[in-house]
Amino acid sequence: MRVGVLGAKGKVGATMVEAVQAAEDLTFTAGVDAGDPLSQLADADTDVVIDFTHPEAVMDNLKFLIDNGIHAVVGTTGFTDERLSQVRTWLAEKPDVAVLIAPNFAIGAVLSMHFARQAARFFGSVEVIELHHPHKADAPSGTAVRTARLIAEARKGMPPNPDATSTALDGARGADVDGIPVHSVRLAGLVAHQEVLFGTQGETLTIRHDSIDRTSFVPGVLLAVRQVAARPGLTIGIEPLLDLG
Amino acid sequence: MRVGVLGAKGKVGATMVEAVQAAEDLTFTAGVDAGDPLSQLADADTDVVIDFTHPEAVMDNLKFLIDNGIHAVVGTTGFTDERLSQVRTWLAEKPDVAVLIAPNFAIGAVLSMHFARQAARFFGSVEVIELHHPHKADAPSGTAVRTARLIAEARKGMPPNPDATSTALDGARGADVDGIPVHSVRLAGLVAHQEVLFGTQGETLTIRHDSIDRTSFVPGVLLAVRQVAARPGLTIGIEPLLDLG
Amino acid sequence: MRVGVLGAKGKVGATMVEAVQAAEDLTFTAGVDAGDPLSQLADADTDVVIDFTHPEAVMDNLKFLIDNGIHAVVGTTGFTDERLSQVRTWLAEKPDVAVLIAPNFAIGAVLSMHFARQAARFFGSVEVIELHHPHKADAPSGTAVRTARLIAEARKGMPPNPDATSTALDGARGADVDGIPVHSVRLAGLVAHQEVLFGTQGETLTIRHDSIDRTSFVPGVLLAVRQVAARPGLTIGIEPLLDLG
Amino acid sequence: MRVGVLGAKGKVGATMVEAVQAAEDLTFTAGVDAGDPLSQLADADTDVVIDFTHPEAVMDNLKFLIDNGIHAVVGTTGFTDERLSQVRTWLAEKPDVAVLIAPNFAIGAVLSMHFARQAARFFGSVEVIELHHPHKADAPSGTAVRTARLIAEARKGMPPNPDATSTALDGARGADVDGIPVHSVRLAGLVAHQEVLFGTQGETLTIRHDSIDRTSFVPGVLLAVRQVAARPGLTIGIEPLLDLG
Repeated sequence: MRVGVLGAKGKVGATMVEAVQAAEDLTFTAGVDAGDPLSQLADADTDVVIDFTHPEAVMDNLKFLIDNGIHAVVGTTGFTDERLSQVRTWLAEKPDVAVLIAPNFAIGAVLSMHFARQAARFFGSVEVIELHHPHKADAPSGTAVRTARLIAEARKGMPPNPDATSTALDGARGADVDGIPVHSVRLAGLVAHQEVLFGTQGETLTIRHDSIDRTSFVPGVLLAVRQVAARPGLTIGIEPLLDLG
Repeated sequence: MRVGVLGAKGKVGATMVEAVQAAEDLTFTAGVDAGDPLSQLADADTDVVIDFTHPEAVMDNLKFLIDNGIHAVVGTTGFTDERLSQVRTWLAEKPDVAVLIAPNFAIGAVLSMHFARQAARFFGSVEVIELHHPHKADAPSGTAVRTARLIAEARKGMPPNPDATSTALDGARGADVDGIPVHSVRLAGLVAHQEVLFGTQGETLTIRHDSIDRTSFVPGVLLAVRQVAARPGLTIGIEPLLDLG
Repeated sequence: MRVGVLGAKGKVGATMVEAVQAAEDLTFTAGVDAGDPLSQLADADTDVVIDFTHPEAVMDNLKFLIDNGIHAVVGTTGFTDERLSQVRTWLAEKPDVAVLIAPNFAIGAVLSMHFARQAARFFGSVEVIELHHPHKADAPSGTAVRTARLIAEARKGMPPNPDATSTALDGARGADVDGIPVHSVRLAGLVAHQEVLFGTQGETLTIRHDSIDRTSFVPGVLLAVRQVAARPGLTIGIEPLLDLG
Repeated sequence: MRVGVLGAKGKVGATMVEAVQAAEDLTFTAGVDAGDPLSQLADADTDVVIDFTHPEAVMDNLKFLIDNGIHAVVGTTGFTDERLSQVRTWLAEKPDVAVLIAPNFAIGAVLSMHFARQAARFFGSVEVIELHHPHKADAPSGTAVRTARLIAEARKGMPPNPDATSTALDGARGADVDGIPVHSVRLAGLVAHQEVLFGTQGETLTIRHDSIDRTSFVPGVLLAVRQVAARPGLTIGIEPLLDLG
């Protein structure tokens, strides 16, 4: 499989160039950055392009790739419903081309959310603790909020967490996200970590994800590169690739 | 739903009697123990019977229940292939009756194994740590061995865990169960705990199950009681009830 | 060493009677409860008495024990400064007699607090997470509040935890106890657990205490029984016995 | 305080140069590497020098520093008893000069070992789990072996861990280091982590250290730089600086 990289001089793009070069089953074709002609990718017989660029560039990139029959794996942000709809329109005319756009390529994070949603119905209690470095601006993290919402949705119709708290200091019981308590720890020496705790009579189940390195997206991107061609059309997120049933 | 209990004077059976009595949507009909007539269960219009008895008693119990159109949820051990085959033969003549036999009703344990199997394909590294009270005779625990085997099966065709260990003390790297290292901790103050650790570039995923009380089987048995009637014939394990897709 | 128990028919007292009887180096002399004559303890040549009784009874008990030259290990609550001062006055006349009064005999809990206080000065960040069963009325737990205060005291003069949070949901960052964030989780299947997390550049240190059984006070009481005679006068808490330097 | 760095172009040395420059209470004087004249350090009125160089260079460095009345904080390895003895001889003639040599500057690691040794006497059970990246050559880690030995020494005279294991797979119960089971996990996505688990009746205490970044030595070196002058003569390890009593 012949793989090119868009945004090849960015931090993430450069990491992906290295990763493609290091993968025995992939051949690196071309790294393209702002100002370089996109035609390099087509000229080099590229099968799949990885795009970690910029919201302002990504739509032009996708138009070119789809027109040239090149599959795309996209980590660039900024996809509104309108943009997704535009991509679908372009793809409708090229039924063999596949585009995968994902907000998060860390497989551990995606599996954590999937498992949390599956477990949600079977435990009377659930809380989320997320722990990050102290430079983070938002609390809770976006991932924790999304996880709590997925859990809350899966628990629709179930009674709320049992909780006999009658005397509490402000904040002790965490933030309430759709009925799920979420606690945010900010600690020097941490990177990005999350625990989902489930409890029922006599037992607890904990799903913990630790990300200690900004390269944790690499295995997920490579997984997408290897499988994208088998899924013509538009795919959102890597969860469908994981074949979790 | 009208529910009876076989083995009602045993430790587990007595716990189940209490649990049925405490459940608002269930009506307790009769508790039967060795020496009591099984007919009590039929006379009380029982829909479902919970059987935590003895390998020597359970086949007679099942024959009676199936003949009388009563569903069964069975935690009694000792089911060989022959016994299961016998139960299927009896059920063939009573197509509306449902029997569920499970070796483990702890939902957290069952989900842990399910998630471990699902995650296994996506991480280059996996190890299992199980931690129990120091009175346990076997190491690793049966659950840890079963978990490791399920993981190994899911990873067929994948390269083994990376491991550069060249100098090691005997035992440091754990027991090898089908290529998965399993570590057994025996510590006063513990009950029954298990961690499955998965790792890939820059991130890890941990699935931890803690069981601190012998009543952790209760929610799983009640789940089975409520759903068994919808699954005529023989069901093995509670995993099919969890509808995990 | 000959050991008696006051409050011998209470839940805690009965557990202590069993524990003394099971200890090879201790001889059980007498179990006394409300209504029984205290003289039984003296008549049986008791060296040390364990008192888990009631605030209304404990002062009379102590008067009798001190007068009769019997050492006391006391877990009964309700000791005001006035009461402690009274006990010291009684002890002044019996310089060989030892009384130890402790609010918490769980060695793990006492060590956790000691270690947390020692570590506090060396980490820029510290937070406390306490996790309990959902029947608990107060949040945070008394132990967590006490732990946070000890840490805050040890950190006097140090800069506060770094924290760039600029957008937060109410409660996400926990309760503020003297500048230390404390998070309270309430989950079915838990008993009483606490984590103190310390962080600095590139590393974290976590001190975790899990109590899963109401008998966790036993080893601390036995430790006190064995060592109390060596400490004439009044001792508060078991920490001095731990000889932590 | 005026601070210089020896080995300033090495990875560790360069990190220390940055750290000194970033510290408000410290003034960076000179960075010296192989080939540069040591006199630069004295010429710049340096109070304390940090030495992360090489076993072949460090003795000459120390001779120069001591002769010139400059304190030293040394992370270079290779100090035999003979070398330490030589340093003491040099220091005897310069009673105001202080040298601190430490094998490990990570405060969390040092505190973990200290706490483990303190806790060791109070728990019937103890085991060590260390978890590292899969490129590590030795199992268990040197730190885990040292931790286990310190614990074993503190437990002299105590009965061994209770353990009823009668059927075990080879390696399941870990490596035996002076009677303490030590388990080594090797997992992609990890850096360097260690847990010491203590257990007694109804409770456990866990001391966990996570190091996720090679700069975790920085806070310990800076602590040593700030305090070394107050400890004339030779100090081994940073533990004495921590004033743990």
